[in-house]
Amino acid sequence: MAQKPGIPKGTRDFSPAEVAKRNYIISVIRKHFELFGFQPIETPSFENSSTLMGKYGDEGDRLIFKILNSGDFLRKVDDALYTSKDSTRLTGKISEKALRYDLTVPFARYVVQHQNEIDLPFKRYQIQPVWRADRPQKGRFREFYQCDADVVGSQSLWQEVEFVQLYDTVFSALGLKGVTIKINNRKVLSGIAEVIGEKDKLIDFTVALDKLDKIGEEGVKKEMLEKGISEAAIEKVQPLFRFTGTAVEKLDRLSELLGSSEEGTKGVEELRFICNTIEATGLEAATLDLDVTLARGLNYYTGAIFEVAASGVAMGSIGGGGRYDDLTGIFGLKGISGVGISFGLDRIYLVLEELGLFPETVTSSSRALFINFGEAEALYSIKAIQSLRRSGIKVELYPDNAKMKKQMQYADKRSIPFTILVGEDEMNKGHYTLKNMQTGEQKAVSLKELTEVLAV
Amino acid sequence: MAQKPGIPKGTRDFSPAEVAKRNYIISVIRKHFELFGFQPIETPSFENSSTLMGKYGDEGDRLIFKILNSGDFLRKVDDALYTSKDSTRLTGKISEKALRYDLTVPFARYVVQHQNEIDLPFKRYQIQPVWRADRPQKGRFREFYQCDADVVGSQSLWQEVEFVQLYDTVFSALGLKGVTIKINNRKVLSGIAEVIGEKDKLIDFTVALDKLDKIGEEGVKKEMLEKGISEAAIEKVQPLFRFTGTAVEKLDRLSELLGSSEEGTKGVEELRFICNTIEATGLEAATLDLDVTLARGLNYYTGAIFEVAASGVAMGSIGGGGRYDDLTGIFGLKGISGVGISFGLDRIYLVLEELGLFPETVTSSSRALFINFGEAEALYSIKAIQSLRRSGIKVELYPDNAKMKKQMQYADKRSIPFTILVGEDEMNKGHYTLKNMQTGEQKAVSLKELTEVLAV
Repeated sequence: MAQKPGIPKGTRDFSPAEVAKRNYIISVIRKHFELFGFQPIETPSFENSSTLMGKYGDEGDRLIFKILNSGDFLRKVDDALYTSKDSTRLTGKISEKALRYDLTVPFARYVVQHQNEIDLPFKRYQIQPVWRADRPQKGRFREFYQCDADVVGSQSLWQEVEFVQLYDTVFSALGLKGVTIKINNRKVLSGIAEVIGEKDKLIDFTVALDKLDKIGEEGVKKEMLEKGISEAAIEKVQPLFRFTGTAVEKLDRLSELLGSSEEGTKGVEELRFICNTIEATGLEAATLDLDVTLARGLNYYTGAIFEVAASGVAMGSIGGGGRYDDLTGIFGLKGISGVGISFGLDRIYLVLEELGLFPETVTSSSRALFINFGEAEALYSIKAIQSLRRSGIKVELYPDNAKMKKQMQYADKRSIPFTILVGEDEMNKGHYTLKNMQTGEQKAVSLKELTEVLAV
Repeated sequence: MAQKPGIPKGTRDFSPAEVAKRNYIISVIRKHFELFGFQPIETPSFENSSTLMGKYGDEGDRLIFKILNSGDFLRKVDDALYTSKDSTRLTGKISEKALRYDLTVPFARYVVQHQNEIDLPFKRYQIQPVWRADRPQKGRFREFYQCDADVVGSQSLWQEVEFVQLYDTVFSALGLKGVTIKINNRKVLSGIAEVIGEKDKLIDFTVALDKLDKIGEEGVKKEMLEKGISEAAIEKVQPLFRFTGTAVEKLDRLSELLGSSEEGTKGVEELRFICNTIEATGLEAATLDLDVTLARGLNYYTGAIFEVAASGVAMGSIGGGGRYDDLTGIFGLKGISGVGISFGLDRIYLVLEELGLFPETVTSSSRALFINFGEAEALYSIKAIQSLRRSGIKVELYPDNAKMKKQMQYADKRSIPFTILVGEDEMNKGHYTLKNMQTGEQKAVSLKELTEVLAV
């Protein structure tokens, strides 16, 4: 009985055109990762459950895909536990492996496991799929790629400078102008918490402040008061409500505001070094913007926080990252600082599509189709095809001696720009009739001319 | 509590050097797939279990990795079934998804599901990992890549011709000389079965014949008799025991031998077309050899059968494939013929490694490391680094102002061929001191000279 075929929700098939475009983005990212001295590693798709569980919070634990043990997996489950029919308890007994949830925890595991083969600072990149049992929705999938670059083993702020440059050059190479690289620092956020007097109100505070554009200063202050932040505290951070200007101007105001906080002052200094250096070296296509409301991944970042926004399209962040001071501590290797950034492949794809920025040369199609008129003609054609392919030109032979109309339609549907016709006349003269599928124009050419026309 | 980190058995971490080499092989294969007009698709890592189960035999069903349903997966399991504590029956109730086992079944599913978007003949390639719960052993992993190219929707033998050429050009591009592309045809095997009078003895027959090199003609005949193949039958296929010479010579003898079998004669004709065409077009680095003992995947191949062996190394096949007349029938689309080949990435890697065929340029290392002598020097360096990277040269800045010896050791360990030293003198003169790490030679150069030396 034939089944109606389908794929699991939240997963995708990628067509040739989609793969070509995705590979284009990945190749640009990979090229720049390597230019910046990052080295590729790959880790297994599934890890021991103990490596992943407990690393992403309770929500994360639930969203990790677990793999059922092979064979008679119930045999070793003791009857008392089995009888309880408790999914959570049973999971630990019948599943020992789980699909990768992100690239950061496997990277930390890799660094600890291979610490004797690695030279610190270790600059690695990793471009691999991850899986999350999230409820699928527009733009959120259960299988998606992450493209990460991280450095471990150095606290130098030159890394942060280079990550800003890396974002700039990648988006510039993709033709994406006007990208904003937002930067903040966890220590600045801690400083603000100190200044407003209540550490536990920090998230309420930044969430409210983030709405400044939408609800105005009065609206923000109202929300802050509702969340229990005192008027005195709000008064103290008044400069944040007129927080415009260049990064340097903003830093001067922050510096004054956070003068009483040692940690806040350290954060301002770090940001100043990064912003001044970027000012001195310049950016190609992006703008660096200091955004004190940026609180992404507040739980684990300890220094710089990055997020990238495209301009001209309504789209969430297309990249993000930051510094985490104790990346490998969970696996027993203490005191190794890490900093890294990530590129959001799916969103970058949507942005490039919407702005029409994929180059025309990004295609999976052949340059020309040789029409098949029979055995002798096909043999004559296949020799030319061999030669063209050796010159790096994608060409194909229609495999069957089908009606010419059918073969032409095939070329047309696949957007193959040229067809090549070979009959007795061409074979006698050593020629090829080249047809431009767009204009309909035909001309007789030699193999040399054919090679020149088809080379891109 | 820190855990001692590890990975599941049968899986692998890939170091930067390994990823660089694997990517080199994949990029060569991908480039030639595209030159030959194959288009890339990608399918999800996990499929609905119903798509995969029952497609690979009982053994396959057991080796497919199943994914546990999310959430309270036991809630809907009825008590009677649960109480039976039967792993196999429970699996169907608590797991609906499974990891891809090969690329062929997902491809068949893709063709049927997207039949209205696809133009036949459809030439697709796919390079993705697959997972098998096999017992891990040397060279056999639970996660490994497959690199497949297939055409569906055409019965033309020109496909087979092109696949032989594709194998030839890929292995030629990888520098692997003397590869043997073995070819056989399922119809020839059927013809032999007809001639020896017993279809069910075919596998015993080919297995015995395959040992000719090792145990000699008498040994083979003895084994055949033991397996119940009659003396008369063995007498009839006597020519197979002296089966040497060119493909054309072998075909002449086969033709005579199988003259009484319609199917066998058809198989010989198909092989003759392929061998004659390859003879006419020539091969670069490989030899096409007719091997009537080749019975790979006998269960599903219906026409040509391919297998590739490297020379000069003890290694199983590094590629294989064939034609299957009803690829998509399992998903309800009848009468679609397919033919395809696969490249064995892991074995090709081992062969290239053993023969020292990886180009020296295949490396994940940077060309030069700028030594960090402090903030001003690093800023001067980072400007040169920006310029070099724009010229496509991989360079990096040591992030910390560490002891020079430590920085030099870092370059050395990572096999970075050059270091660049910048002090006050260099900054004043607008120079860079370039040090060749192999010879120890140092010289002062301008940025332009630096770019020229470092460009590869």
